Formats: sequence, structure tokens, C-alpha cells
Amino acid sequence: MTESKNNNYPTQKIKVGILGCTGIVGQRFIELLYNHPLFIITKLGASPRSAGKSYRNVVHWKLIQACPESIMDILVEECIPRNFDGCTLVFSALDSSVAEGLEETFAAAGFPVFSNAASHRCDIDVPIIVPYVNAFHMSIIDHQRKQRGYGKGFIVTNANCSTVGLAVALKPLMDHFGVDGVFVTTMQAVSGAGYPGVPSLDITDNIIPFVSGEEPKLESEVNKILGGCTGTRFNAAEFSISAHCNRVNVTDGHTLCVSVKLKNPATVCDIKKVLKGYKSVTGVLPSTPTACIYIAEETDRPQPRLDRIRGGGYTITVGRIRPCPILDIKFVVCSHNTILGAAGGSILNAELAYGKGYLD
Amino acid sequence: MTESKNNNYPTQKIKVGILGCTGIVGQRFIELLYNHPLFIITKLGASPRSAGKSYRNVVHWKLIQACPESIMDILVEECIPRNFDGCTLVFSALDSSVAEGLEETFAAAGFPVFSNAASHRCDIDVPIIVPYVNAFHMSIIDHQRKQRGYGKGFIVTNANCSTVGLAVALKPLMDHFGVDGVFVTTMQAVSGAGYPGVPSLDITDNIIPFVSGEEPKLESEVNKILGGCTGTRFNAAEFSISAHCNRVNVTDGHTLCVSVKLKNPATVCDIKKVLKGYKSVTGVLPSTPTACIYIAEETDRPQPRLDRIRGGGYTITVGRIRPCPILDIKFVVCSHNTILGAAGGSILNAELAYGKGYLD
Amino acid sequence: MTESKNNNYPTQKIKVGILGCTGIVGQRFIELLYNHPLFIITKLGASPRSAGKSYRNVVHWKLIQACPESIMDILVEECIPRNFDGCTLVFSALDSSVAEGLEETFAAAGFPVFSNAASHRCDIDVPIIVPYVNAFHMSIIDHQRKQRGYGKGFIVTNANCSTVGLAVALKPLMDHFGVDGVFVTTMQAVSGAGYPGVPSLDITDNIIPFVSGEEPKLESEVNKILGGCTGTRFNAAEFSISAHCNRVNVTDGHTLCVSVKLKNPATVCDIKKVLKGYKSVTGVLPSTPTACIYIAEETDRPQPRLDRIRGGGYTITVGRIRPCPILDIKFVVCSHNTILGAAGGSILNAELAYGKGYLD
Amino acid sequence: MTESKNNNYPTQKIKVGILGCTGIVGQRFIELLYNHPLFIITKLGASPRSAGKSYRNVVHWKLIQACPESIMDILVEECIPRNFDGCTLVFSALDSSVAEGLEETFAAAGFPVFSNAASHRCDIDVPIIVPYVNAFHMSIIDHQRKQRGYGKGFIVTNANCSTVGLAVALKPLMDHFGVDGVFVTTMQAVSGAGYPGVPSLDITDNIIPFVSGEEPKLESEVNKILGGCTGTRFNAAEFSISAHCNRVNVTDGHTLCVSVKLKNPATVCDIKKVLKGYKSVTGVLPSTPTACIYIAEETDRPQPRLDRIRGGGYTITVGRIRPCPILDIKFVVCSHNTILGAAGGSILNAELAYGKGYLD
Repeated sequence: MTESKNNNYPTQKIKVGILGCTGIVGQRFIELLYNHPLFIITKLGASPRSAGKSYRNVVHWKLIQACPESIMDILVEECIPRNFDGCTLVFSALDSSVAEGLEETFAAAGFPVFSNAASHRCDIDVPIIVPYVNAFHMSIIDHQRKQRGYGKGFIVTNANCSTVGLAVALKPLMDHFGVDGVFVTTMQAVSGAGYPGVPSLDITDNIIPFVSGEEPKLESEVNKILGGCTGTRFNAAEFSISAHCNRVNVTDGHTLCVSVKLKNPATVCDIKKVLKGYKSVTGVLPSTPTACIYIAEETDRPQPRLDRIRGGGYTITVGRIRPCPILDIKFVVCSHNTILGAAGGSILNAELAYGKGYLD
Repeated sequence: MTESKNNNYPTQKIKVGILGCTGIVGQRFIELLYNHPLFIITKLGASPRSAGKSYRNVVHWKLIQACPESIMDILVEECIPRNFDGCTLVFSALDSSVAEGLEETFAAAGFPVFSNAASHRCDIDVPIIVPYVNAFHMSIIDHQRKQRGYGKGFIVTNANCSTVGLAVALKPLMDHFGVDGVFVTTMQAVSGAGYPGVPSLDITDNIIPFVSGEEPKLESEVNKILGGCTGTRFNAAEFSISAHCNRVNVTDGHTLCVSVKLKNPATVCDIKKVLKGYKSVTGVLPSTPTACIYIAEETDRPQPRLDRIRGGGYTITVGRIRPCPILDIKFVVCSHNTILGAAGGSILNAELAYGKGYLD
Repeated sequence: MTESKNNNYPTQKIKVGILGCTGIVGQRFIELLYNHPLFIITKLGASPRSAGKSYRNVVHWKLIQACPESIMDILVEECIPRNFDGCTLVFSALDSSVAEGLEETFAAAGFPVFSNAASHRCDIDVPIIVPYVNAFHMSIIDHQRKQRGYGKGFIVTNANCSTVGLAVALKPLMDHFGVDGVFVTTMQAVSGAGYPGVPSLDITDNIIPFVSGEEPKLESEVNKILGGCTGTRFNAAEFSISAHCNRVNVTDGHTLCVSVKLKNPATVCDIKKVLKGYKSVTGVLPSTPTACIYIAEETDRPQPRLDRIRGGGYTITVGRIRPCPILDIKFVVCSHNTILGAAGGSILNAELAYGKGYLD
Repeated sequence: MTESKNNNYPTQKIKVGILGCTGIVGQRFIELLYNHPLFIITKLGASPRSAGKSYRNVVHWKLIQACPESIMDILVEECIPRNFDGCTLVFSALDSSVAEGLEETFAAAGFPVFSNAASHRCDIDVPIIVPYVNAFHMSIIDHQRKQRGYGKGFIVTNANCSTVGLAVALKPLMDHFGVDGVFVTTMQAVSGAGYPGVPSLDITDNIIPFVSGEEPKLESEVNKILGGCTGTRFNAAEFSISAHCNRVNVTDGHTLCVSVKLKNPATVCDIKKVLKGYKSVTGVLPSTPTACIYIAEETDRPQPRLDRIRGGGYTITVGRIRPCPILDIKFVVCSHNTILGAAGGSILNAELAYGKGYLD
């Protein structure tokens, strides 16, 4: 593959397919991949009910930026590997109900699968990658291929939409001071529940103090992401997390109130410095923002409406760093749940896989 | 004073005045005191700017239940003691900016002052009363009168709108198991900021992870309320509280995510039983609801829109009781911030003072 | 049937069933019929999927007032006439998709059916009754029974949720001045779309300028309601209506901006007087409020949040009466879409039928 | 002034000041003028209270795109002409309370004033310019200068935020078919009321059927804009407008339901064609979007959340074109109230004035 000198992009873009293209996350994949420097969408997959129709006729497009006309014209395929011939990889925005089997089918057929579904996140040979944090977990891929007989295919998952902001914020703290326990209360956007998702009658003038399945995810995924990887095994980071998850009346952007117990003492000033100075361990991927972490200095930030789109939705915003009377330090994190926390996270993962040669 | 046999209500209602009658809390006082079995509104006080005008002409009435016409016709007075002659007591919904001095002036002039303002909550001789919890703190009144030379007057404060739900939920846990530490993240209604209060541009599609002055209040008031009282001194309960306070897009009803470290072990079942069985220590006051604490069994409750008005806004709802991986137990509390958490709280306090003979 | 002297209520309440009991309107029927002086709920009907389970297990209760426990315990029936033996009448909150056939089946089996569905509103022998307006249309029932061979059964429909407020406001104007044309722009609450209904992603920070099927309904139903009835035929009122229908981010309460061309001149003062003085033509039914029409004098009323519940949701509020530069007069109407505009409307119709002897 | 060949932009950008820089419209001016190809912000003016402080210290920045740091550092000036020496023109986002006098003072001092305030819109020698519609009204400037002795200064106003969408949609209809009467019901965003503006307690779960002063503006400004201009006098277009104005729970974007009586018959198809084909009469200004009017074909569009930002906020979206049973045609218009309807409108006006040589 001939590459340009400056940015290591291939002369021809890499063809990709999207499984589960009609939902909110499927739409974000399209938005973020259109005009992407490395990837080009050539196939769209959805349920048999939608197959054979143009995307225009099956999607309820819900994003503010209009869907490109050329995408609207694509005929939607059923999610069967032979329909995706010619694609170098697939992104999966499939529903949990079907993701498990279909993703395995595609991987077995030789496709690298970059998944947004939760189905394989707990598998002992499937990594949950947040490139800013644990790019090195990708080394499990060879082991996964061997174990599962996947050939060139493999499955890489991204982190849950509420996990990702927490993992990015904790990583530099763990590196510098050690982490011994974490409290987190989430206030999660309705787009996290997909479309139609949360009825307006349920959330207008209200909050719902429960998000199905979310607390167990938060209380286990972070440890896997922040832990080690030997190439054949993950070693979870050893600290406890307690999560309270809430749904609030916000369209996009998850807000997290976090308290952290550190292994070694640190001042607010130390924390701020370490978070501010944090550089993604991956080097520069096409979608990596200038800063992974932005420190908001105002007393009342971050706020989802104002901060979610920072860095194109790829930057997390941390604010209100202050001492915690029970643990050591507390702060607020805001991240975009359908960009960094979903489609964008998987795109970063695919960019990373490309950079590391896993797409060859 | 002749009393009826059954309910100990006086044959003639006790005349009361309201200082700061035009704001949201002032309006709640009116709503809750209209047709009250014990009290009758005879005087309304507001700033000099409003004095001399009928209530109709100075109020922006914001409650869903319309203001009674007979109240609308009352001429508003400036907040000077002699204007409240004939009132047995005054309720204060004054702004913090003026409450401190004015409440002292009224107390010095012989008026029992039942205050919703924060100004005197930290005073060493002023109790913060949540009748379900610490009615016995009222015994400080004699000491306060002596210290300050107030004669028949005194100042009793209610708890901050976010404190009250926490204090009520913690009281039975403290009594049965002991409390050693508390995490609380609040999601507070906009009515807590008064009117006009929070601009819609700030809260639509948004949350604000900061409520000015609220975290220090939560982190200290609860200990005073749950502590002891010798009659001349308060002994704060000795445990730490860490609070994250947020403003959310809800009109009324504060929701709290709470984690508690107990001194003695308790199962979810124990906790539920103890909360469910909790009886207010006061006996029956006119406004006391059937239950101080209601346990919601659904997985996604309490929710402010559905649970805030339980018990007429005087009952707190607790749900999602479950183990906490960091401390011991976690749950969600919802309480009405302008009823139990503001005007209603002060009314309960006045009912209690009547029952204990402090109004004689 | 023995009746009490004062209010003509039967000594034993009339047993009623509710078809379609799980939706938002079904829930309102339950809320409004519980403790009703005339009717008592004895049967609840829903889809075969729900049949045989207790109501508790099939309903997502969405109203602020909790569902009574005794109702929660009722076993839900499939909507087949023999399951409703013992009921004197049924209320229908059925989905349009099934209402047409099922309502006919129940009527044919001898049940008076008081329907909230649109299916039969255009039938030439089925009345759309708004008791405040056209109680005399009920005289078509005998004709309907004969035509359809219904025996004691019949079908009476209520008006569409946005139609009812308009019909009530126009009736006195038509009586006094004649109506020659009507412009109406609606801003309709999300509860009008049922549950789950409108996704929050569609309506947060948004309005939707389209409500499926609503404009044609508004542009024809009002004429039928305000027209004549010979006992065998309806004569539609002859004036044109132009409707713009919008969905807005409001839970309950439809707001209508109305402009009216009158046949005879009238001042704002005349209009106000006539609306204020309007008395329902029915006399007093158990659910009839003190006033059918309330005139709000404030410059910025009616508002759904503050005015929808007036008269228990049975009173419409009219405000901002002023001249119209194109037609003659303009004003704003607010009415409760799931009380007067749905379940409550059907209950009024059943009360009316009782009073007129159609239930004997 | 030397100009580049291709776009007629000056080699050096034109220095501009902003009067009333701290409000929502002031912030939009900054957002839209930063990196503007023709203008560069050099001065910011506000009330004496803010003067002498950096913009950072006086603004509550409410826009989603962050304020550029270089703007944040500018020292705010009091709004006195000599403080704006060096500026070729000023934009005014002043409050109506002070706009009238201050704008005259600046014009008299030789500054072209491009105003967003309503104060001078009714003046007989001040044009209300919507460049897509009535650029030729700018010819009144010479007359204005002479009448008022303004020298090089003058005042040009933009249209009210709800007027502009209506004027743009009506212009092609007037040109092709003639307009004989217009009904319009507005659903206006809260940002139209500035900041803090509408309290969340007033608009959550609510609509307010009244916007102070808005209906008279709509009922007169459109006629002035769509009328003639002789160079010394405006001749208002002769048709009536009836407006119902409402405030809804939307952050940005005004939605208008419009019915139009035409002088000559036209089909829905004709209307669509004429609107679609409409070209701004101005030729290309730097901020003019590809299309002034976009026709949405979906049945439920335009919607403010999805359509307000079309064309960078400079394009109006028209949808739901259909016959009107009372007048002739009806449709829905959505336009961005603080871009095309406020700051952006004034910027277009200044670009137009530059193109026509009024800034020389």
C-alpha cells in the first residue's frame, strides 16, 4: 500500500461498512466517516426489513447536520458477510440483541469488527479500547485470532458511553498517584438510549435515577480498560468503583460527578497539572483532538450543552477539581456520548488498528 | 386558650405574618397556610418597594394552584415589627441579603420567627429543625432567648432544601446502625433558585454542575441536625459528608444519590425495614403526612415529577436501596424542595413549637 | 332504579368497563372514574397479550396521582363482550387500529360505548358529543340503534383533543353573533400522542409542525359538533376552518391561537361577556365544572402549565381576546387534552346519557 | 482602497465596533464577525458599569462555540463615539432602553450604525433592510443624512427576529402572485428575549402565548419592508397581517405558521417553484448562503432544532406548503432568530452597504 509522506494516509481510502446503520449511533458513524481522511463508507447494513431499500427510505435521520445525499442513495444490505465483500473492515452499531452472533460471524469471515455493542466487552480475549488510554490492549488481537480461528478477522470493542469519560480522566491520575477507589454519579443524555429511546413523557420536568444495565458496566469496564494486558490475558486494575446512573433531560453529553481515592497524596493543583498535561499514548490518529482532556476553569463547568462538542466531540472536559471530604479528590467530567462515547470511539479504534498494521 | 378535645387545635386560629411574601417560597407559605387548621395569615410583608400595594399588584404568582382572592386583596406591609402587631408569629421567606438583620429585629420585638433563610443556621444558639428528626433541638430556645434578650421572641430555622431529604433518610439509619460517612450527589430543581432564578437558556438541554453555596451547606447542616442538643449547646454528629450539587431541568423536587458507610453491618432488607418503619419523633402535627418516608419498590423510582407531591409534598421517597461497593449501602431520595424543603418545613416547625408550648 | 332525592344518583353505582385500559387515556379514565359518584369500574380490558394479568403487571402508570391499589389488583380481560358481562356500559380508549371493529362488536352485544377513538366520528349516525355544546345530538341514538340493529347498545364518540376547546369557545359566539370562518393554530401536548408517544429526542429544544391526521379532524369535526341534528341526520355548520397543528414540548394541555370571522359585529367586550356568561346546555352533570369557560384577564394567559387543570381539567380557559386585522376577533384557548379532551369528555357523555335515560 | 480581483474584498479588513457587546445578540455579532472576510472587530462597547474591564470579565458567554481568546482580552469601552475612533462603522446590539439616543449620537458623529434595536425601525427616513428582499431601500440613506445632518453617518436597522422569516418567504409570492393578506402564528425561541431572559420556571412544560410588543411589530414591519422606496419616502405594501405570537421552549429558531391570501391564483406546485427559485436581489454578499430559501419536503419539517442552522443560520426553511381553506395557501417557516433574525441580519446589511459604496 503506497502511502503519502506526510500523514501516512493511504492513497486510496479504506473501504468500510456499517452494521446497524439506521440508529442514532449508526447515524453518527455516517456523519463522522463522511469525508474521513482514511476511511470511506461503501456498504450500509441493517435488518432484513430494511434491506434492499435506499438509506433515505429507512432512516429517521436525527442529527443536526443533514445526511449527505450520496449516502442517502446507498442501498441498505442485510448484515451478511458476503454483502460486505470489498470492505476492509466493518463498524458495528448493532443492537445488543443481535450484535453478539453477527459480529462473530463477520470476524469469522475475515472482517475486523469495530464494535459499539456491549456484547463482547466482557470476553476474555476481546479488548475494550479507549485509544487515549490503553492502545496497547490491541496486542490481544493475535491471541484472539488464534483462539477463535478468525483468520484476518477480529473484534475490538469501544467503551460504554459513560465509561469512556471516566477512564480517560482516571488514566493520568492512576499513572501519577495511583487510584484506590472511585465514586461516580452519572447524568446521562437521552441519545444514549437510541431512537425512539426515552419518551418525552418520561423525562420532561423529570429525571430517571436508573439506566438499565449501566451501573454494572461502569463498575467493571473501567478496571479492564485501566488494567494490564500480557498479549494473552487482561489483568484488571484493582480498585472498587461505585456508580449511581441517572437519565436526565439532555440530548447529548454525559456528565459525571467523580470522587477518587488516591494511593499517594496530591493537591488540587497537582491533579489539574497532570490532567492538563495528559497526552494520548497513541500519538496522532486522524480523529484525535488537540487535547484529550480540557480543564474548564469556570466554577460552573463543564455543562453538556456548552462542552460536549469540544474537540469535535473527541475531547473530554474536566472541571470543579476540589478536595473530597470522604475520598481524596472530586471533580466533574463531561464527554460526548455518541461521538467519543460511541461511533467516534470505534473510529479511533479503527484508526489505531490501521496505524498498528492490523488492517493489512 | 381553650382547645377542642380531639385535635388540640385552638378555637381561634393563630394569626401569622409572612416576611418575604412575593417569592416562590413566600407563595408556598400562602398556599400551605390557606385553610391551615391552626394558623391564619393576617399580614404579608415585603420590600419597601411593594409596601402599600395589594398582593395582587406585586406578586408574579407561579404556583399551579391559583392564589386565593382574599389573599390577593391583602395590602402588603414593609417588614417592620410594628406592622405585624397582632401576629403571634412570623414566617420568614426573606432573601439572605436582608434576612439576617430583619429576623433578629423581629425576634427582639417578641416574635417567634420561623425562618427559611440560611442566615442563622450556623448560629450556635439557633436550631435547624426537621421535626421528623430533631424536634428536641427546640429546647435551645430558652437559652437563645436568655443569651439574646429576646423576651418571647426566638428564631428557629428549617433545613436547606437539599439537606432535609438527606437528614430524614439518615436519621433511622443512624439510630439503628450508626453512620460513618456519606456521599451525596444532588440533582436539584430550578425552583430552588427562586424566581426568576435559572434562565431557560442555561438549563434547557443542559445541567449545571454547581449550585452556589450548596455543597458547604450540605456538608455541615446535616451533622448539626443529626447531632445532640444539651439545651445550651449543639454537638454535631461526627461523620463526614461529601456533596456534589447539580442543577437540573426539573421544576420542583430534589433528587439525591446517596451512599452511606454504616458503623454496624446491615442488609438491604434491614435498611428497607428500618426506613419503612420510621415514625416521626414528634407525634402528629397538623401537616405531618401519614408516612415521613415512603419506600418505592420500582427499579426506576423515585422520580421528581411522579414522587415529589407524595404526602402533599411532606413525604420523602426512597428507592433503589442496594449495596455500595465503596461504602456500605446506596439509595436514591426524592423530596419536595419548596414544600418539605422550604415553606412546609417552617410550617411544621411552627406546629411543633405550638405543640411544645413555645407560642404561649 | 331507586334514586336519591338530591342529586338523582342511583343508590348503587353503575358498573362500567374500560376498553384499552393501559394507555395514557385508559389511565385517565381510571383516575377520573375512581370515586366517581355515578360509575364504578368493574372490568378492565386490553390486548390479548395483557389479558389474564393483574393491571399492576401490565401498566406503565404515567399519571402524577398514583393508581389506587384496588385497581392495580384487577385482572385485565381480553376485549370480548362476554368478559364485560355485568357492566352497564363501556368506555373505549382503544387504539384506532382496533377501535372500529371492537366498538361495533360491543355495541352490537348491547353495550353503550363511550368512545375516545376517532374511528366512528365521521359515521353519519354516530354523534360527536361535547356536552357543553351539543347534548341534543344524542337524539341520534335511537336512529343509530335502528339502523344498525344494536338493541340497547350504541356508540357515542367524544371530540378530538384539539377540537374540544375550539368547539366550546365557538359555541357561544355562534349563538350570539354567528361564525363565518375560523383560523386556528394548535400547540399540542405530547400526551396527546399516548405513551411512549413522542421521543424526547424529537421534542427537546424543538417543535414539530405536524400532527398526523390532526388538521383534517379539526377542519371537519367542529362543523359536525356545532351543526344541527334532526334525530336521523346531522347538518354540519357551514363555515370554513383552517388549521395549523403543532406538537410542542408540554406534557399536558393544548393551546390554540384562534381567529374568528363573525356574521354580526361584536366588540372585544361583547365577546368577553358572552364567553363569560356561557352556561352548558346540559344542566349539571356530576363532572361539569363550575364554569365551562374561564376568562383569563392577564396579558400572558392562558398557559398550559398553569391553566390546564382549571375546573379539574374540565374548564377551558380563554384569554387575550382582541381584534383581528384579517378576520374579526382573535383569542387564545387552553384545554386539558386528556381530561376534557379525552377521558373526561367521554365520562361527561356517559353522565349525559344517564341523565337522558339512555342507560336504562 | 485597493481591492482583490476575485471577491472585491479590501486588502485590509474594515474595522468595526460593537455597541452592546455582552448580550446574546452582542455575542452573536462576535461569533459571526470573527474571521469575517470583510470586517474585523476592534472595539467593544457596553454600559459604563462594564467599561474598563476585559470582555472576559463582563460577559456570560452563552453560545456553544467558545469565544475566541483574543476577543476575551479586549477592554470594553463605554458607548461614546470618541471611544470608537478608527472604526469605519458600528453594529448596535443595544437594549431598546438606550438604543434610540446612543445610535443617533453615533450617526451624528459620522458612524454608519447597523442596528438590531427596534428604536428606529418606524422612523420615516430609516430603512429596515433584509438584503434578500429590499436592498434598494438603502437608497434612503442620502435623504436621511441630509434630513438629520449626519454627514457620513447613518442608521440602518434590521428586521425583528420574527419578521425576517416572514418577509423573505412573502417576497417571491408578492412578486409572482401578489399578496392580499397574511395570517401568522409564531412559536418563538427563548433566545429572542436575551439573557437572562425567560425564566425556566416560566417555560418548562409550558408555552407563553404572548411576546411583549411583538404582534404590532410583525403587523407593521413586514409592510414597510415589502413596500416601495422612492429615495425620500417609503410606501408600505398594502395588505393586512394578523399575528399571534407565542414563546416556546426552544433555545434558538423561530417557527411560523403562515396562511396567505394571494392576488392571483397559484397551485402548491407554483408556490414551491417560486420559493425554490428565489434568488436574493443583492447578488452575492460574503455572508449570503447558497440559498436564501430552502424547501423541506418531509411532512414534519421545518423543525427549529434541525433546520435553524441551515446555511450557517442565514437560510430560511419553508415546508408543509398546502392549500388553506380560508385564505389561499399555507406553510411553515423556520429561521434562526439570532443569526438571520438579529446579528447576522445586521452584518448582511453592512456587507450590502459596503457593496453599494455607503462605507466609503
